[in-house]
Amino acid sequence: MGPVCIAQESAYKDWQDFAVTTQVLANHNMLKVPQNQVAGHQAGGGNLGPLVDDSGHFYKPLQGDERGSKEVAFYTSFSLNTKVPDEIRKFFPIFYGTQLVEASDGSGLKSHLVLEDLTLGNVNPSIMDIKIGSRTWSPQASEDYIAKCLKKDRESSSLLLGFRLSGLQFYTNKEAVFRKPTKKSVQSLSAEEIKLVLKNFVSSNTSTELESKPDCAFASVVFGGPNGILSQLFELKSWFEDQTLYHFYSVSVHMMYEKQLASEGRNPRAEIKLIDFAHVDEGRGVIDHNFLGGICSLVKFISEILRATDDCPIKALNYLLGDEVENLVLSLRDKLQK
Amino acid sequence: MGPVCIAQESAYKDWQDFAVTTQVLANHNMLKVPQNQVAGHQAGGGNLGPLVDDSGHFYKPLQGDERGSKEVAFYTSFSLNTKVPDEIRKFFPIFYGTQLVEASDGSGLKSHLVLEDLTLGNVNPSIMDIKIGSRTWSPQASEDYIAKCLKKDRESSSLLLGFRLSGLQFYTNKEAVFRKPTKKSVQSLSAEEIKLVLKNFVSSNTSTELESKPDCAFASVVFGGPNGILSQLFELKSWFEDQTLYHFYSVSVHMMYEKQLASEGRNPRAEIKLIDFAHVDEGRGVIDHNFLGGICSLVKFISEILRATDDCPIKALNYLLGDEVENLVLSLRDKLQK
Repeated sequence: MGPVCIAQESAYKDWQDFAVTTQVLANHNMLKVPQNQVAGHQAGGGNLGPLVDDSGHFYKPLQGDERGSKEVAFYTSFSLNTKVPDEIRKFFPIFYGTQLVEASDGSGLKSHLVLEDLTLGNVNPSIMDIKIGSRTWSPQASEDYIAKCLKKDRESSSLLLGFRLSGLQFYTNKEAVFRKPTKKSVQSLSAEEIKLVLKNFVSSNTSTELESKPDCAFASVVFGGPNGILSQLFELKSWFEDQTLYHFYSVSVHMMYEKQLASEGRNPRAEIKLIDFAHVDEGRGVIDHNFLGGICSLVKFISEILRATDDCPIKALNYLLGDEVENLVLSLRDKLQK
Repeated sequence: MGPVCIAQESAYKDWQDFAVTTQVLANHNMLKVPQNQVAGHQAGGGNLGPLVDDSGHFYKPLQGDERGSKEVAFYTSFSLNTKVPDEIRKFFPIFYGTQLVEASDGSGLKSHLVLEDLTLGNVNPSIMDIKIGSRTWSPQASEDYIAKCLKKDRESSSLLLGFRLSGLQFYTNKEAVFRKPTKKSVQSLSAEEIKLVLKNFVSSNTSTELESKPDCAFASVVFGGPNGILSQLFELKSWFEDQTLYHFYSVSVHMMYEKQLASEGRNPRAEIKLIDFAHVDEGRGVIDHNFLGGICSLVKFISEILRATDDCPIKALNYLLGDEVENLVLSLRDKLQK
């Protein structure tokens, strides 16, 4: 797909960065297919899908049915909602409004959401998208839609685990190979399998296949620590225990970090964002117990992996600093035990 | 229904109080219809339902289908499970095994669960039974059962609130009148209505009808404080964030206190217990996100009532200590503002 032009659709309000959008419009920026999208409709090969530019914008075509208008309505409401704490906003992509853009399938100008490109500045991000909630449908949805979702929730891991994997990309640092399993193969994982995938996500010995004995070398820096993914999930959890503004059906947590940075002992830029808001309802005075339950389940899985890693920190040290450190630690232990 | 006799069914293991059961068997204790049961099948009028004796035992007839055997299996497993912390056991009725007992419907000897009588020692307990979880069915249930439960979850408040009221009994201290609404009238309450019921539960001005302006006079002593219901719910919540032993479908929280004691400024014996375990599954390495979400939703409602009560504590003081205190507080406030 070649570069395309952007035309302004309509004036809109933006709570944070109106100037950026204006600039995008002025530049007639070149758009291309994103390299790091692991779930959802994908552009390329004449298909309709999201596009990105070089300035950090992600263009998501509005779905023709009411999903498109519901997602715009959510982003608009959320952007303007003064009840959302600033420290929670960081978990949501910045919203720059909607624009008419040449669609990736060549069908001409089409309305797109303009969002923050979450992978901007990343070279080889490892990514997991996890759809949260044992129920992906709103009580207000149509009978047909509920039946369809319920079937999928039962066939996938959603019902049992409270979430399902909707996509992933592993960076294997030996050959710089990405692994993007197909949707079906990852959605119906068991508790043990999802634990294995999460361990592979933070391991140094990942190959093109799932490693059955992942070393979890980066668990403590990616999942753990004050800026790690678990800490971010706890922030989200606290908000969900209290907020009655929105109910997030079929929304995913997008987890990402740079394995190359982790393997160099640098800050791996571990980050979570919430994505896909085509099925958000008003909260009407009730917390989102469905989403909260799913987050708590994910927290439990990640906590267990971290706890297991804490029991054998030598492996991680070994990876980062080489065999000598492991030998040193082992000999120190021997001396202490004598 | 007249008094009935007990015959021993089989030897069984009891984790806590085997001696008590033996005594029951020896005494041929008289059984009667419980006075404070607010939900479930009720004995009396020739119906099959639970019975109690004077020694603190509650006899629940085993449901003929697999529900009966599932409930026995749960109580047996739970009683023997050393992974359940002691401080969590207090939220479950003590299990004394099963016994053959003359059924309340006159159908002869029938197998009963023998449990702790939760209302023993209470004179006029105010009670609310709340079925927890937006989903009351297990993924392993039959298609017919799932369809039936799903319909009920959608028609009641379960889907939206994450729980539904399954029964209540209010003690109105003026005329000693109990109010036991029918099941249907309480199951489909909205968020605002459930809040009103919870407020009435802890109010001094409850009448035979729901009071539209409940004074919440006892909110701080029943819901609040280190031994209050909210504190107990937080203990349960912590365990559910971690435990992967059981998944509790269609289980209720039984909340109870003595309004008479509260109105005398004494400890109102506020207490929660979990009841009804005919649909419990093994946890298989996953937390019970469905139950946890429902508990968090209930916690939010009760927290909001408490917070609102904290804003105007004069009302509660007024009830307990009379008008003079209110006048004193108001005059003090006037002086401070001058």
